Amino acid sequence: MMEIAQLPVYRDRHLTLLTDLYQLTMMYGQFNAGRHEIRVVFDVFYRSNPCGNGYVVAAGLEQVAWYLYHLKFTEGDIAYLRSLNMFSEAFLEYLRNFSFHGDVYAIPEGTLVFPNEPLLRVEGPIVEVQLIESAILSFINHQSLIATKARRIVEAARTNPLHPGSPVIEMGLRRAQNVDASVFGARAAYIGGCVGTSNLMAGESYNIPVSGTQGHSWIQSFPSELDAFLAYAEAFPEETVLLVDTYDVLRSGVPNAIEVGRRMRDAGRSLKAIRIDSGDLAYLSKRARRMLDAAGLTDVKIIASSDLDEYTIRDLVTQGAEIDAWGVGTHLITSSECPALGCVYKLVAQQVDGVWEPRIKVSENPNKVTNPGRKKVLRLFVDNQAVADLIALDYEHFDPSEPLELFDPIHTYKRKVIENYRIEELLVPIFERGQLVYELPQAHDIRERVDLQVEQFAAEIRRPLKPHEYHVDLSQELWDLKQSLLHQWRKPEGKKG
Amino acid sequence: MMEIAQLPVYRDRHLTLLTDLYQLTMMYGQFNAGRHEIRVVFDVFYRSNPCGNGYVVAAGLEQVAWYLYHLKFTEGDIAYLRSLNMFSEAFLEYLRNFSFHGDVYAIPEGTLVFPNEPLLRVEGPIVEVQLIESAILSFINHQSLIATKARRIVEAARTNPLHPGSPVIEMGLRRAQNVDASVFGARAAYIGGCVGTSNLMAGESYNIPVSGTQGHSWIQSFPSELDAFLAYAEAFPEETVLLVDTYDVLRSGVPNAIEVGRRMRDAGRSLKAIRIDSGDLAYLSKRARRMLDAAGLTDVKIIASSDLDEYTIRDLVTQGAEIDAWGVGTHLITSSECPALGCVYKLVAQQVDGVWEPRIKVSENPNKVTNPGRKKVLRLFVDNQAVADLIALDYEHFDPSEPLELFDPIHTYKRKVIENYRIEELLVPIFERGQLVYELPQAHDIRERVDLQVEQFAAEIRRPLKPHEYHVDLSQELWDLKQSLLHQWRKPEGKKG
Repeated sequence: MMEIAQLPVYRDRHLTLLTDLYQLTMMYGQFNAGRHEIRVVFDVFYRSNPCGNGYVVAAGLEQVAWYLYHLKFTEGDIAYLRSLNMFSEAFLEYLRNFSFHGDVYAIPEGTLVFPNEPLLRVEGPIVEVQLIESAILSFINHQSLIATKARRIVEAARTNPLHPGSPVIEMGLRRAQNVDASVFGARAAYIGGCVGTSNLMAGESYNIPVSGTQGHSWIQSFPSELDAFLAYAEAFPEETVLLVDTYDVLRSGVPNAIEVGRRMRDAGRSLKAIRIDSGDLAYLSKRARRMLDAAGLTDVKIIASSDLDEYTIRDLVTQGAEIDAWGVGTHLITSSECPALGCVYKLVAQQVDGVWEPRIKVSENPNKVTNPGRKKVLRLFVDNQAVADLIALDYEHFDPSEPLELFDPIHTYKRKVIENYRIEELLVPIFERGQLVYELPQAHDIRERVDLQVEQFAAEIRRPLKPHEYHVDLSQELWDLKQSLLHQWRKPEGKKG
Repeated sequence: MMEIAQLPVYRDRHLTLLTDLYQLTMMYGQFNAGRHEIRVVFDVFYRSNPCGNGYVVAAGLEQVAWYLYHLKFTEGDIAYLRSLNMFSEAFLEYLRNFSFHGDVYAIPEGTLVFPNEPLLRVEGPIVEVQLIESAILSFINHQSLIATKARRIVEAARTNPLHPGSPVIEMGLRRAQNVDASVFGARAAYIGGCVGTSNLMAGESYNIPVSGTQGHSWIQSFPSELDAFLAYAEAFPEETVLLVDTYDVLRSGVPNAIEVGRRMRDAGRSLKAIRIDSGDLAYLSKRARRMLDAAGLTDVKIIASSDLDEYTIRDLVTQGAEIDAWGVGTHLITSSECPALGCVYKLVAQQVDGVWEPRIKVSENPNKVTNPGRKKVLRLFVDNQAVADLIALDYEHFDPSEPLELFDPIHTYKRKVIENYRIEELLVPIFERGQLVYELPQAHDIRERVDLQVEQFAAEIRRPLKPHEYHVDLSQELWDLKQSLLHQWRKPEGKKG
């Protein structure tokens, strides 16, 4: 944990008050009622995939770990809480010695996850587990959203038949929703498959490759476009990328870039790429490619940027755009089509007289009824292909040598028996009694994990539009428990939830 | 500046590397070419209003001021830049002594602004002015966007005929795009007219009123809903707000709240409000209102939350929903409908041999052609009503006692003469030669400024859907300059930009 505490993005930050006031009022209420040590289990999960995608790329756990590890109330925090005139001195004194003593299980970053699966399971005294809801949700919601959006964009670019595997660079800092959105967003975009970022703070914090060349102002600041190009080639002879759309791509930018490319070739060097940042990218890239090729500059790459997202990239690719690499900003860094993931944090179990009791949240909307109890998530593989996830109670045991009948938790007549399957348990311990027991992987390793994960799922599930719905089933025992709690609730005398 | 440096949201943060790599490569290129001291002017402006709104509420300037005031390269920053193997030691040594020496003019936070107006004008050596582009844009784009979205939502709630001026509370922390999006977002929402936030870190940082009661888990953690309500009333007798939708609003939540309300009344206290967080808010609020009234609890307010935005609030109000206050989360804190504002940062003037020369950015898209020169923004008032904004060259003088002919800069036949007008100059000095010369107002004062500003504009301009377009005109002299630069550019020998 020492290393991540030194990351520029975390250094010296104190986030204990990054919470909703109602967490403090509930903590105080429990404290006041002498109930604050009651042990509870909360699940973090979401109910539907963002952007119509078939899955979510889990991300944000490192930030959760850093936050919990550093959680304490400073004197400044306590002074502020006192100023609200809502809390007793006894409670404020209690906060002075507060730290997180709970257990956290989580699905590692870079795992593909699905609706209703617990991504984190947090267990501990209610007063501790309550405080941390808001921050945990913000971290997981944000980073998982951007990693998922990045994956959608990266998949669109990689399936380019003319330029297979064409890379995507994240460059959204100026449109990000403030500092952390840009830095943790760049991390999430990298995890999702981007090859790099323009953002230096993200590059430094997470060892993400950084890239960038020049903007229009560079070109404008010189007496002519050619002067500007030559000055850039002089400063960066090994990495000369020229922005060709400041005045006129085909009549000025590309001809001047060709002039520079020829001079560099004569000097035994080579122009690396041109960048087109406006106009019709299909038309301009095809014309520019022909002009470059005709000048013998067949190795010069074409980079495109300008309001790109997965849909535009797919259309450009379909139209045979000659684009070797993509710079994506706004739509990636904000996930503009769907700028929030809806992870929630729900009480699922509580100790009463030393015995765990399941808890359920009833709702008029059946989608919002929670899965009760302390649970685990099992991914079931047949022939190394993920065929279904099974949410089961923590203590259940499944023997992969026996056939297993799965059923849809809503339309229970839909059933399927699997045999010779392999089980992967997705939730792993992160904190035990407040101690961090998990070795946090590097962003680069998480990024590789995503590539491996994606291969485990059928292409139909990875389709960007209207994907096939991956099966997330409940074990028979969990399903029975849920039904019995729902029926118990429906009886007038059973309104305990 | 001392005070804001101590705000919890800024404390100890170092953001110099919050920039795109291409700013550093351009700085290095200019340094290498001996051109880094060239004085330039850049404008910050946006091209179209977000969410179909008629204006933008300017916000984010405080963050810009803090950032520029603290701008310096640490040894850590320089070590990171060295590790990229792109920059000479001479340049890194230069950065070691870097600070901002430029001039900044800005339109104060809380001002209503319009497309193409310079919100900031930054002037200084190109090497300094270049570095700061990305961070400035991120701050201004984010906070102006959220302030504008908040204003839309607040206007929808205030025009509630049953509950005129019904307040909006920002509560989006858990869905915000990470820490800063939630904290600076809460500030912007407050500026836009929200009465408070649930976010304690924002409350502490900006002295924003905080509010919050209990979540579903509070209710679930007690043996019964009534027990939970009573325990809460015990802990917060003066501020008892009860969440009534954990099990069943009308059959359980409201009856239990009425029971608590009666007991509190008998004890000489009073139940403050109930909160409904799911279901059909029009139906449930009307039914709940009748039940509360029938029990004599006519003073108990009803607070609604659940996926609200300006459109849903307007529809609920139209349907006579009995809602006294609104809690708004996701759609406000992400501006979900349009999660990015597109402010750009463009070179508009440059000193050549001690003389200022205007610069223009040409584009295939006429909307993207910039307004050249060092400019000011004048707001013109007739009878205390803002009738047009005029973008003029910095040195131009207008005499309000003489009639002034305004014309549409695109459709120039559209003309209008105003007389007896008053001029307000919108850009004010913030930094002079690197010194902060502006007293940064409190968030609360900026919030009041917005209310005053809004009154200066015709209702047609403030309409949330398809508003009348406010006139933003160019002075004759600026228009002539722009045309002459464009014609000059169109001549083959004139490709200087």
